[in-house]
Amino acid sequence: MTADREPGTSAAAGGAAGGQAWHDRLRAALAAGDAEAARQEAAGAHPADLAEFVLDLEPADRPRLIGLLPPEQAALVVEELPPEVQSEVLTVLGRERAVAVLGEMSSDEIADLIGELPPARAVDLLRLLREEEAADVRELLAYLDDTAGGLMTTEFVAVQDDLTAAEAIETLRRLAPEAETVYYVYVVDQEERLRGVLSLRELIVAPPDRRVRDIMRTNVISVPADMDQEEVARLVAKYDLLAVPVVDGEGRILGIVTVDDVVDVLEEEASEDIYRLGGTSDEEAASPSAWFRAWLRLPWLVGLLLGELIVARVIQGFHGTLERVEQLAYFIPLLAATAGNVGTQSLAVAVRGLATGEIRRREMGRALAREFRVGTLLGIALAATSYGIVRATTGSQAVAATVGVAMGLNIVIASSIGVLVPLALHRLRVDPAVASGPFVTTALDIVGTLVYFLTASLLLWRYAAG
Amino acid sequence: MTADREPGTSAAAGGAAGGQAWHDRLRAALAAGDAEAARQEAAGAHPADLAEFVLDLEPADRPRLIGLLPPEQAALVVEELPPEVQSEVLTVLGRERAVAVLGEMSSDEIADLIGELPPARAVDLLRLLREEEAADVRELLAYLDDTAGGLMTTEFVAVQDDLTAAEAIETLRRLAPEAETVYYVYVVDQEERLRGVLSLRELIVAPPDRRVRDIMRTNVISVPADMDQEEVARLVAKYDLLAVPVVDGEGRILGIVTVDDVVDVLEEEASEDIYRLGGTSDEEAASPSAWFRAWLRLPWLVGLLLGELIVARVIQGFHGTLERVEQLAYFIPLLAATAGNVGTQSLAVAVRGLATGEIRRREMGRALAREFRVGTLLGIALAATSYGIVRATTGSQAVAATVGVAMGLNIVIASSIGVLVPLALHRLRVDPAVASGPFVTTALDIVGTLVYFLTASLLLWRYAAG
Repeated sequence: MTADREPGTSAAAGGAAGGQAWHDRLRAALAAGDAEAARQEAAGAHPADLAEFVLDLEPADRPRLIGLLPPEQAALVVEELPPEVQSEVLTVLGRERAVAVLGEMSSDEIADLIGELPPARAVDLLRLLREEEAADVRELLAYLDDTAGGLMTTEFVAVQDDLTAAEAIETLRRLAPEAETVYYVYVVDQEERLRGVLSLRELIVAPPDRRVRDIMRTNVISVPADMDQEEVARLVAKYDLLAVPVVDGEGRILGIVTVDDVVDVLEEEASEDIYRLGGTSDEEAASPSAWFRAWLRLPWLVGLLLGELIVARVIQGFHGTLERVEQLAYFIPLLAATAGNVGTQSLAVAVRGLATGEIRRREMGRALAREFRVGTLLGIALAATSYGIVRATTGSQAVAATVGVAMGLNIVIASSIGVLVPLALHRLRVDPAVASGPFVTTALDIVGTLVYFLTASLLLWRYAAG
Repeated sequence: MTADREPGTSAAAGGAAGGQAWHDRLRAALAAGDAEAARQEAAGAHPADLAEFVLDLEPADRPRLIGLLPPEQAALVVEELPPEVQSEVLTVLGRERAVAVLGEMSSDEIADLIGELPPARAVDLLRLLREEEAADVRELLAYLDDTAGGLMTTEFVAVQDDLTAAEAIETLRRLAPEAETVYYVYVVDQEERLRGVLSLRELIVAPPDRRVRDIMRTNVISVPADMDQEEVARLVAKYDLLAVPVVDGEGRILGIVTVDDVVDVLEEEASEDIYRLGGTSDEEAASPSAWFRAWLRLPWLVGLLLGELIVARVIQGFHGTLERVEQLAYFIPLLAATAGNVGTQSLAVAVRGLATGEIRRREMGRALAREFRVGTLLGIALAATSYGIVRATTGSQAVAATVGVAMGLNIVIASSIGVLVPLALHRLRVDPAVASGPFVTTALDIVGTLVYFLTASLLLWRYAAG
């Protein structure tokens, strides 16, 4: 993204009210094939609004609108589109036009786009770029997508530490149009190693003839290029930064990760966790196709189905017990569901706690012990409740005792498993959200049913004996 | 937060490596009661790191550390603490010390803190403030916590539109120490109405004698004070802003909402959704007490327990059918769980889609229709699978047909309910995440069991007749 971190203005958003009238007028101009009118309607709109408008168009109409915008504006709009749509639009746009638009895009955006393309088309597109920009892009492509290197932009402002404040400001005047919004002014030595940092305000209020090395702040918070993007995001959020510099092994500054990209990473991560906990994948959000969405969900569901077949097997194994006391069948879902519910609560708390760093800090052992205490308290409360209700409704002491005891046991097991699984995955450096909600509830269905019938066999034998 | 949006530096974080050695030294100095050594160890640490350190201390030790820091540093650390801990610490700190720390805190932070206190203590604390700051705080307290007004800071930079660029820079030099990081320079007319905006860079590169009204951008994106904080956050994220101005009914600028607070809002919102989908409340994260956590989860669990008692009732109602074909009991959890799983998937997709605005844009009708198609595809696939497996394992055509048909119906119902409930809640302006995962799965357990036994009665009658 290039110019959109600039102070936000938009004829379309136009404050809070934000009319949709330009939408209709632009749509009409496009339908009438009136390129000039369409260009005028689009002129005042914010790129983010135009990108939304483009996404609402039929895929075939999208390149038509992009094609008639001035290249700088087209680039800003393309940068706001999802990568699949970007490559779609640029493919149809025609070589000359695509070159013009690419020329206005920032190198990190181009690298993200090229990363999505099949190799042949990627090479083709790289050839369209100016030599210098192609080199930047190739360098960015070397970093993995989900690392600081993959997230950073190479457009930042750095000045030599032996410049005076006035000279530094002069350098900014020359460099600034190339750089993204000036978040911070980084200070480097002769070998390009990061030495310090200044805000633009600090530079302005400093005496013009002071050297920047004497006014800069040292001990700059920076990240290595291979740091995971979520870790970078947490760091920026924790220290309330607007941007964080990315450095190589020798401490040379390679680029910066800016707060707006961090916002996107945090949002992506939250989406991923929510979809996973719900038992599907966040790839869903990218596709409007019902077939594709069903296809993404199916493996989970089939896996869970097989899990529930084990539950069926467990019940079948106890069919003797079930024949003796038919009433036991009524409460199978009760036991399984409550275990599942308790497990889901623990899971949600653990997954989010790990994501926000709340749990890492206070140590996992403590989180585990606390969850065990919570489970015990809940187990006692719900065992008593369900014993009372079952006793009152069935009149059977034996059935009520079975449900009560199994309930208590199940809840303690469920809350422990619910927190243990994500903590263990985290230790193994696997995303804890992989342990999706339905996965854990199905496992608990199996355990819960087993505990229920084992308790039943035991207690019924005792009641029969007593 | 005052100075922490400044370029991030920290002896503690110190780049990527970030040693923990100062942690141990600070702890030792505190244990030894060596105030001077503790102050020195703390001097280089970032306020966010110190706040983490404070949270890890025993509650009784926290005010002791805060008490020995210089007031400016103490204020920065206190601002990073959760509100409950803030008020705890300030209460114990003693009047004089508390006044010194409060004097260094920004008005929006003080307002947030006071909003958390019991009224008597709030009044007491307001009296400790300087007249001018107390007025600022009182003004901020008038806005609801979760609105733009509740989120904004009153420390921003605005210049009159008839100043020249050079005069505006001079104003900045005078005002800047009072203001948070200068994100954007807002331009106002004689009546304080927001007229335009400039980046600091644009101001610097402008010819010094040009009037700001001639170089500013107009059509500034702004928000009203009563806009919901999530809406504000979405807007800032969408337009990649660093800050957005908050205006009153006459267009006068009241304050700004900055991107770091927006990051916090987005994180809170994601946490809330994840906890809710898991069937508990995000209040959990604030408390380490197992009793409190159990107490928060209990109402959900008891409600769900009552739901599962309805399931028990349904099964009991069909006990004649169950007696005739005992094998039906084996697959009760299978049917209920699969419906629950499908419902949870739809729910996660809908809740997150509504939160990120993905669904709002493309209309709800379309989302509903798509989910229905997904449900139908999944229903067909899983009906066939479960028919095959049950047929093979039980050898009973009647049981297999019952499970297959009920499965198909349940899945279509589940995917529709899973998306319908959050969409309906959203229409009614209720947070869609209120429809927690366990709530929907329990409802689906009831419906699923009913559908299963109705199908069984019908098919068994047909098989018996045929």
